[in-house]
Amino acid sequence: MALQARVLYDFTSENPGEISVKENEIVTLYSEQDIEGWLEGTNSRGERGLLPASYVEIQKSGKPTSYNNNSTSVDAYQGSRYANIPPGGFDPSYKIPNQVESYNKSSASSFTTFSGPPPPSSQQQGYSVSQGSDDDWDDDWDDNSTVADEPGVVSGGFHDFEGNGPSTYRVSTSMSRGGNAQQAKSSATVSRNLNRFSTFVKSGGEAFVLGEASGFVKDGDKICVVMGQYGPEWQENPYPFSCTIDDPTKQTKFKGMKSYISYKLTPTHTQSQVNRRYKHFDWLYARLVEKFPVISVPHIPEKQATGRFEEDFISKRRKGLIWWMNHMTSHPVLARCDVFQHFLTCSSTDEKAWKQGKRKAEKDEMVGANFFLTISTPAAPLDLQEVESKIDGFKAFTKKMDDSVIQVNATLNEFARKQIAGFKKEYQKVGQSFKYLSQAFELDQQAYSTGLNQAIAYTGEAYEAIGDYFAEQPKQDVDPVMDLLALYQGHLANYPDIIHVQKGALTKVKESQKHVEEGKMERQQADGINERCNIISFATLAEIQHFHHIRVRDYKAQMQHYLQQQISFFQKVTGKLEEALRKYDNA
Amino acid sequence: MALQARVLYDFTSENPGEISVKENEIVTLYSEQDIEGWLEGTNSRGERGLLPASYVEIQKSGKPTSYNNNSTSVDAYQGSRYANIPPGGFDPSYKIPNQVESYNKSSASSFTTFSGPPPPSSQQQGYSVSQGSDDDWDDDWDDNSTVADEPGVVSGGFHDFEGNGPSTYRVSTSMSRGGNAQQAKSSATVSRNLNRFSTFVKSGGEAFVLGEASGFVKDGDKICVVMGQYGPEWQENPYPFSCTIDDPTKQTKFKGMKSYISYKLTPTHTQSQVNRRYKHFDWLYARLVEKFPVISVPHIPEKQATGRFEEDFISKRRKGLIWWMNHMTSHPVLARCDVFQHFLTCSSTDEKAWKQGKRKAEKDEMVGANFFLTISTPAAPLDLQEVESKIDGFKAFTKKMDDSVIQVNATLNEFARKQIAGFKKEYQKVGQSFKYLSQAFELDQQAYSTGLNQAIAYTGEAYEAIGDYFAEQPKQDVDPVMDLLALYQGHLANYPDIIHVQKGALTKVKESQKHVEEGKMERQQADGINERCNIISFATLAEIQHFHHIRVRDYKAQMQHYLQQQISFFQKVTGKLEEALRKYDNA
Repeated sequence: MALQARVLYDFTSENPGEISVKENEIVTLYSEQDIEGWLEGTNSRGERGLLPASYVEIQKSGKPTSYNNNSTSVDAYQGSRYANIPPGGFDPSYKIPNQVESYNKSSASSFTTFSGPPPPSSQQQGYSVSQGSDDDWDDDWDDNSTVADEPGVVSGGFHDFEGNGPSTYRVSTSMSRGGNAQQAKSSATVSRNLNRFSTFVKSGGEAFVLGEASGFVKDGDKICVVMGQYGPEWQENPYPFSCTIDDPTKQTKFKGMKSYISYKLTPTHTQSQVNRRYKHFDWLYARLVEKFPVISVPHIPEKQATGRFEEDFISKRRKGLIWWMNHMTSHPVLARCDVFQHFLTCSSTDEKAWKQGKRKAEKDEMVGANFFLTISTPAAPLDLQEVESKIDGFKAFTKKMDDSVIQVNATLNEFARKQIAGFKKEYQKVGQSFKYLSQAFELDQQAYSTGLNQAIAYTGEAYEAIGDYFAEQPKQDVDPVMDLLALYQGHLANYPDIIHVQKGALTKVKESQKHVEEGKMERQQADGINERCNIISFATLAEIQHFHHIRVRDYKAQMQHYLQQQISFFQKVTGKLEEALRKYDNA
Repeated sequence: MALQARVLYDFTSENPGEISVKENEIVTLYSEQDIEGWLEGTNSRGERGLLPASYVEIQKSGKPTSYNNNSTSVDAYQGSRYANIPPGGFDPSYKIPNQVESYNKSSASSFTTFSGPPPPSSQQQGYSVSQGSDDDWDDDWDDNSTVADEPGVVSGGFHDFEGNGPSTYRVSTSMSRGGNAQQAKSSATVSRNLNRFSTFVKSGGEAFVLGEASGFVKDGDKICVVMGQYGPEWQENPYPFSCTIDDPTKQTKFKGMKSYISYKLTPTHTQSQVNRRYKHFDWLYARLVEKFPVISVPHIPEKQATGRFEEDFISKRRKGLIWWMNHMTSHPVLARCDVFQHFLTCSSTDEKAWKQGKRKAEKDEMVGANFFLTISTPAAPLDLQEVESKIDGFKAFTKKMDDSVIQVNATLNEFARKQIAGFKKEYQKVGQSFKYLSQAFELDQQAYSTGLNQAIAYTGEAYEAIGDYFAEQPKQDVDPVMDLLALYQGHLANYPDIIHVQKGALTKVKESQKHVEEGKMERQQADGINERCNIISFATLAEIQHFHHIRVRDYKAQMQHYLQQQISFFQKVTGKLEEALRKYDNA
């Protein structure tokens, strides 16, 4: 009964969700239908997951079927758990059916009974998709609408992978640039990445480079990369703004059954306050990550299961959200995007407007591969080699910066710990011993000793106070630096994927050039790939430039703040000691 | 052959040199002649030492001899190892024979072959007498003259214990005050302390109180206690001076065979420099301790066997000697005494003058019991009860001060250790992590980053420097406090003995009053005891007053110095940080 297959070549799992198999191993499959060249099965060690369809030979009525071409059929595969894969990555022409909501509602039970392998790690792109039980899956959606609100849920229906489906909304910029619809079709001769979970694929980078992206780009969606003093950069936001986050307050609903913390957000460009919960930030974050393939979306502060209503935690989270907001509003592209504006400006009391905007964002077609369609670049293309060298340089930079951020983080953490415990203890012990000395001296009742006794007692108190100063200090200086480092650790974790997309595009260009030389591809098609790679390069370099700019801005400001706080601290200590010294004047 | 005795009562050793014995135990004696009521013997456990003569019954030809009266004969006892016991303690009228030097020279070999019990702990009075082998004994005297130079060596000759010996030099002040020579004699009916090594006895306090002291008091020797604002105090030195100690330099003699460190002393009242070695200080110290029973002679810095020529040690010893000198010149009695003046003023090149002064000091008769003869007090006697209460208060004070000095010492020691190791490490680690961060940033060659990179690198250096500041700081502030504490620990170690002398005198007064009531003593004699106790009380209270005065002066100055140094330190740290902060102005 079980569908079995023999493994043709060794395959080593490289991503979460994949399983390793050995040549000649017999695996059990759940379906002979592959999804994007992958099959789900269980290997001889009982591990369940995905393996490349082309690596196995299905043993069916004695007639093995080997996969050597890309199957485009997915309908039989209950791949709904892969909802977090950007749709552009799978099927740029895929259209969410109008009836998707009702459909999903009716088929909701099928999700909870689905028992396929866990989805590929959500962390890779910072997705907030639960990897836990199905109950968690439902919980994740809390009081939001159903799972079906999530875009990219692969329904059981038929999909045209050729990119020329029945949609009447779409305009493929690649077509308008590179030629006709055939281009996308013929791009199948340029090899696709075997691993469908690579960032290059998932982000939509591959689909875009291969000319498979198509969408209607409104003027408002246009994102410009311009040549600045230091190279490509995002066009500045002509209406810069910032946004404060204040007064986190505990709210309840369902007659107090459910509690949450609400933050007051006041953007400077509207001056009108909105209330948002962490889960709104979380939702927004997921939208942004999905939408922007080569933009480093700042990570939101981590989730926390316990102590969510403790003051320290709330204060820490607020600070994290402030940092996050600062990086959002500082980013020329992120600051202006619709979903962020909706988040910032939609009235907290107008639930209908909120839901409309929410649905609109979740149905946004200009995500992933299509995002690249919205980018307009300077006319002169970039030099490929120069781009590669810049990207390599940046890769080395992020690696070293990441190391040093980890080191500074660990050092300051330890420094703070020492100040709170050790330094405090030492100064307080000195203070106590002075106090003890003054107590001994008080046994001598002679008048000429009184002033000294009091001065020494005061000195003891001063040292105890200095101990407290040391313990309180990290909150003033170390903590903000740590917040900054945490935010940058998030960015640095984003960059490998961004670089990966750019590298993937470059590889495709090289491949296509080779194909042209070998006469396997038309020059025109290769030129299209090259042009689209150029767009990705411009975007990537603009993003890198932006990163360096905010990095210099942020680290300068933080180092100044840190030093100012340290100076204030030592001045405070000095002041306390001077106060103590003055007590001896009359002693 | 061996002389044996049966123990009559249990006796538990309370001082070094004594041995414990049990009732009915048989001990072996070295002589049946007691010395001041003590016999030397070996108990059944083979321990050798002294035991009270009155506790044993000598078993001689079947006829036991028990000691129930004080034997006054010492001639047969080779007690020369007890040379460090002030002669006043044994025999106030004892006169060093004119030929003592030649005698001692001729009998020098007898010292080295003597194998009696070790002398009582030299620490009790801070004596610098060696307790080691006989070789050490000789070594102690180095290139000084022979052992015989030391006063108080008990020769084998006969001594008149009645205090009315053949001396023509002596004037007993007790006689001139209390009556006649008979007084001293009849004082034998007032019980003597059983333990002849108690400070009260050793210091000469007992002998003086019992009227056994006698000596010729020159006008220059007169020491006045006056009533000051806060009670009895030493009359101020009308010619106050101080003395600097500079340039410790290494000198050699015997063609470089022997090296030593010479210190340049310049007293302000002569303005002429003399060179002195540590052993001169040591010799002087021994003279002073011997001479002044109720004065707390500041301890000289400790001896050290190794590393004597290392810079750190020399610098530390010099600082210790400066403190010591300060306390010497600050003391109204010590500052003016002959031996100290000889030490300060005798030309270093005039060896003959030095030896003369040295011998004179060693032959000084106004030491121990006789020192009290030189004290003149206000006419109105002190209230005994008040004195007792003051002394008790001071005893409690010294106990508590000693505890707190130990605590401050331990705390500051640990504080210094932490600054030198832990604090330094923490700040340097912070510095290193900043430097590492700047190195990472340098990988980004963009012009707008350069200023920041340099500023962060400088901040890293600043923190490394601050780490060094922390490590160097204890030398500036903790060390001087520790020096002060060490000096005061010495004083505090002196006070139990001083208090003991005063308490012993008070006890004698009470005893004599009781004796008078019981008709066992003439009132006149008791009055004499009372008067002499009054002198001791005046001296003790004056010394206590002096202690409090210099204590307040010293601790005030040191605490101020400590705080000033700490303030400078934190200002230096602040300055360094401000420097670092300025680097960001152009970043």
